[in-house]
Amino acid sequence: MTTPLRVLIIGGVACGPKAGARLRRLMPDADITMIDKGELVSYGACGLPYYVEGVFPNIKALTHTQVGLPRTPEFFEKTKGFKVMNRTEALSIDREKKTVRVKNLTTGEETDLSYDKLVLATGGRPFRPPIPGIHLKNVWFMTHPDDADTLVKEVESQGLEKAVMVGAGFIGMEMAEALIYKGLDVTLVEMQDQILPGVLDKDMADYTQIHLDDNDVEVVLSERVTALLGDDADDKLTAVQTDQNTYDADLAIIAVGTRPNFELAEAAGLSCRRGIIINEYCQTSDPDIYAGGDCVVNHYAGKGAGDYMYAPLGSTANKQGRIIANHIAGRPSPFSGITGTGIVKAFDFTVGRTGLTETQAIRLNLDYESVIWGGPDKPHYMKDARYLLIKMLANRKDRKVIGVQVAGMGAGDKRLDVAASTIFYGGALDDLADIDLAYAPPYSPPIDPIAACAQVLSNKLDGLAHCISPAEAKRRMDQGEVVLLDVREPDENKMLKMAYDKVIHIPLGELRDRINELPEDTDILPFCKISLRGYEAQRILNASGYNRVWFIEGGHEAWPYELDYLGM
Amino acid sequence: MTTPLRVLIIGGVACGPKAGARLRRLMPDADITMIDKGELVSYGACGLPYYVEGVFPNIKALTHTQVGLPRTPEFFEKTKGFKVMNRTEALSIDREKKTVRVKNLTTGEETDLSYDKLVLATGGRPFRPPIPGIHLKNVWFMTHPDDADTLVKEVESQGLEKAVMVGAGFIGMEMAEALIYKGLDVTLVEMQDQILPGVLDKDMADYTQIHLDDNDVEVVLSERVTALLGDDADDKLTAVQTDQNTYDADLAIIAVGTRPNFELAEAAGLSCRRGIIINEYCQTSDPDIYAGGDCVVNHYAGKGAGDYMYAPLGSTANKQGRIIANHIAGRPSPFSGITGTGIVKAFDFTVGRTGLTETQAIRLNLDYESVIWGGPDKPHYMKDARYLLIKMLANRKDRKVIGVQVAGMGAGDKRLDVAASTIFYGGALDDLADIDLAYAPPYSPPIDPIAACAQVLSNKLDGLAHCISPAEAKRRMDQGEVVLLDVREPDENKMLKMAYDKVIHIPLGELRDRINELPEDTDILPFCKISLRGYEAQRILNASGYNRVWFIEGGHEAWPYELDYLGM
Repeated sequence: MTTPLRVLIIGGVACGPKAGARLRRLMPDADITMIDKGELVSYGACGLPYYVEGVFPNIKALTHTQVGLPRTPEFFEKTKGFKVMNRTEALSIDREKKTVRVKNLTTGEETDLSYDKLVLATGGRPFRPPIPGIHLKNVWFMTHPDDADTLVKEVESQGLEKAVMVGAGFIGMEMAEALIYKGLDVTLVEMQDQILPGVLDKDMADYTQIHLDDNDVEVVLSERVTALLGDDADDKLTAVQTDQNTYDADLAIIAVGTRPNFELAEAAGLSCRRGIIINEYCQTSDPDIYAGGDCVVNHYAGKGAGDYMYAPLGSTANKQGRIIANHIAGRPSPFSGITGTGIVKAFDFTVGRTGLTETQAIRLNLDYESVIWGGPDKPHYMKDARYLLIKMLANRKDRKVIGVQVAGMGAGDKRLDVAASTIFYGGALDDLADIDLAYAPPYSPPIDPIAACAQVLSNKLDGLAHCISPAEAKRRMDQGEVVLLDVREPDENKMLKMAYDKVIHIPLGELRDRINELPEDTDILPFCKISLRGYEAQRILNASGYNRVWFIEGGHEAWPYELDYLGM
Repeated sequence: MTTPLRVLIIGGVACGPKAGARLRRLMPDADITMIDKGELVSYGACGLPYYVEGVFPNIKALTHTQVGLPRTPEFFEKTKGFKVMNRTEALSIDREKKTVRVKNLTTGEETDLSYDKLVLATGGRPFRPPIPGIHLKNVWFMTHPDDADTLVKEVESQGLEKAVMVGAGFIGMEMAEALIYKGLDVTLVEMQDQILPGVLDKDMADYTQIHLDDNDVEVVLSERVTALLGDDADDKLTAVQTDQNTYDADLAIIAVGTRPNFELAEAAGLSCRRGIIINEYCQTSDPDIYAGGDCVVNHYAGKGAGDYMYAPLGSTANKQGRIIANHIAGRPSPFSGITGTGIVKAFDFTVGRTGLTETQAIRLNLDYESVIWGGPDKPHYMKDARYLLIKMLANRKDRKVIGVQVAGMGAGDKRLDVAASTIFYGGALDDLADIDLAYAPPYSPPIDPIAACAQVLSNKLDGLAHCISPAEAKRRMDQGEVVLLDVREPDENKMLKMAYDKVIHIPLGELRDRINELPEDTDILPFCKISLRGYEAQRILNASGYNRVWFIEGGHEAWPYELDYLGM
């Protein structure tokens, strides 16, 4: 009789439990133990903002199974068939002896656990900025069910009213929504000059920011938080100080990024570079030690995007748990890597990206073209059709799609998933235009927005569509060099105008007859509501010999700057 | 000076206008004319059921642009820059002379129009079954705005109350919903033994049918309509007669399929086979004659699915209009073909498929495996999480995904589009499990349903998951040969039971301790709510030497047969 394989898993959320459960199914005889230093294991941390928001009434939903069983060590032993030791911290790894020194946090007792295969699923932790006052009461990090639980209780018992969110990343956005819906005043302070830095390009972020404004979030950009101020008497937060202002606050949430927990791995001599480095089977530089989830850096599945990307996400963590179990069990299945897909609901907006942003493409020195497309996510006659903005990047040479961003009330998640698939499979613009997507009026227009966007970018690469982004149009308008050509109908023009003094208004249907009203020696920027007619106008002008013509991508619907609403 | 290229387009809906508009943008000098025998051109026929339902109040939404301009010949001339002749019928094509004989339906006058390139976008027509009474009043086909317009008016003015839908395809399903929402009694009569024949496999159709029942649609299967009965006095419909029954009806909608209008092409000697045959540039057997939209048969983009597929859809028609214009303008862009994607909203259900059904896979003699997966479309703690059923087929050898069907209240359209992308790009199960899809709780669980389904099918192919479809389980239960193993919690078991006399109930957490309560000489079928625990149970039993174990795919949530609700 052979000794069963001893597998030790460090970390009890997402990657760890997934690896353990899958491995038990693959290897009925393995000796599997999972340790975690916390009391709770296998909780749904991504759901915290939605508990705070009140989407579900009981925080147990995040720590219990779908049918209400608490995910305790006993639960894992009984249903998943492996041993779980909570309140047990891993102190060090002895790779030669293949042991891990662990400490029971209840008794203080230290022991050594042996392993044949070790899985590091040590996760990440919120970055704790080194500023005065970070220890004050009513300052939260939002990573553990206890955080959300105490936040909700304290908001009620203390009657907290003014919240400052530090950091406008995913968690900051989600918490801003949650607290606004709870009736608090919310100020969102971000050090960068845009919300969702690193996720969106500035143009898409500016567009999204309007929606935050509409929902009463006070967005403060380009200010760095320097201190949290408190009341000397009770040590409670009173204000958040930045390098430029001071904001009253009785509640703050710090969400300025996640840092991988790789100290244990690094101390054991495993290769790390801002996270544990792994191969496609999630093996570290020691083949008997695996790692997955928020403690690792990931490979980018797309081409030309550099080696590594740190993108801590529950979805990736779960996949890697499976990859690890497969490899340990002798059923290797290489992981293809990630494409940096991320999404966030911000009030009625769906905002996200997959692949590379333009900022990244520039940094990587890629030869790319990009476009912004806007339009409804269903035929215009469907009453629940919603506007959606898509930004797409493609390589100039092979026309492969390298990045897509979405923002708007329309169903952007679906288009993002199709784009993520296209990037994953190495598809080009013409592929995206051809995919036989599911069409019926309740779901999409005959030409799906993601296909329509690919067509416009294709037209741009082919020199048919001459167009510029809203940001570029604004820059040129600010220099006063250009004439705008509004090709909308008179009613539309009456309702809403671009805030600019050189606008010529000729409805598209009259353009062919009135083309001589246009100046020949000036750059002309046609636009309409979504620039479908703007594009048509550009082609008409080109056909009449006007060559200094660029329509404004996305039309006034995509315009994140000032507009004059006359009909209001 | 050269003569401009003369392009004649026959057919003014979807493919035709798209080809004309795109061609004008590509070739400013071309001489483009589009003819159509109807009064209206370029209307949104797919929206008709939603007008009837009352989703939008004015049928002009289907015949006017987004900003309210009617799509008249004048509109096309002014904004799209090409000539449109409505009420003009094409009688014949003279390919040698390159002329088309046309008739002005207002004046009766016949003339010849010359072309250098001809585009056939003649569309399809509803199949008109050769049964008595088809001419009666209050019998509608639903293909033209006039149909929907008169239907709504007559329902109101005559007070029509009892509708029979003949045919349970997409239009039948959409109209059933529309008329139920309008307050009518609706009976849906289908000749086949399932709804959505040709679209779904019977198991997915049976599951969907429960939802129609829940919404008071009386579904009648396996009955062929033999006659429509009318009142001799006023020629109005009174009943629909089938080969087995007679159903009272004061309104009937006939939706038993679309037939391609290819007679003109066939008479001109172009290659046709149940539709016009085209190459990847939409050229017919005469390279100067193109065809696209509902009059052509399409190439299947997936592998091994036979040559041709007739799938009339507005989405494909629009793509082909673009392909045609590109080729005429000397910018050839081959069309990749279709994957038979189709979707329909049926009340609160989203139902659809992409790729091949199991029925087709069997007919094509493919070596495939299939699975049914069910589960929520978001984490269970999100209050708007909805259940979704996915059926997936993959080739056994290369594990490529060859078909996906969805049904349920969950967001199936998104998963269908990812599946369509995967089939389009030739992706395998392991690809689908790896794609970096957009994850956040408002959009999906950490492991997206489409990835989870791919994993289960992968496990099934690898011999890890032993499972059978609900239909197969039912068959074996009916033979009385099997024991069901309910591994749910006691509360769940009290609320709802499978209607079967040999059920052993052991909650999953107790299974390892109570395994000796199970018979060793019988086939055992574990299940739970969605068969996640059912799978776990199967692995536990296998590990203890039980090898005649198959869990029921999708659990009781996917069970389309009788269930005993005790808690109700």
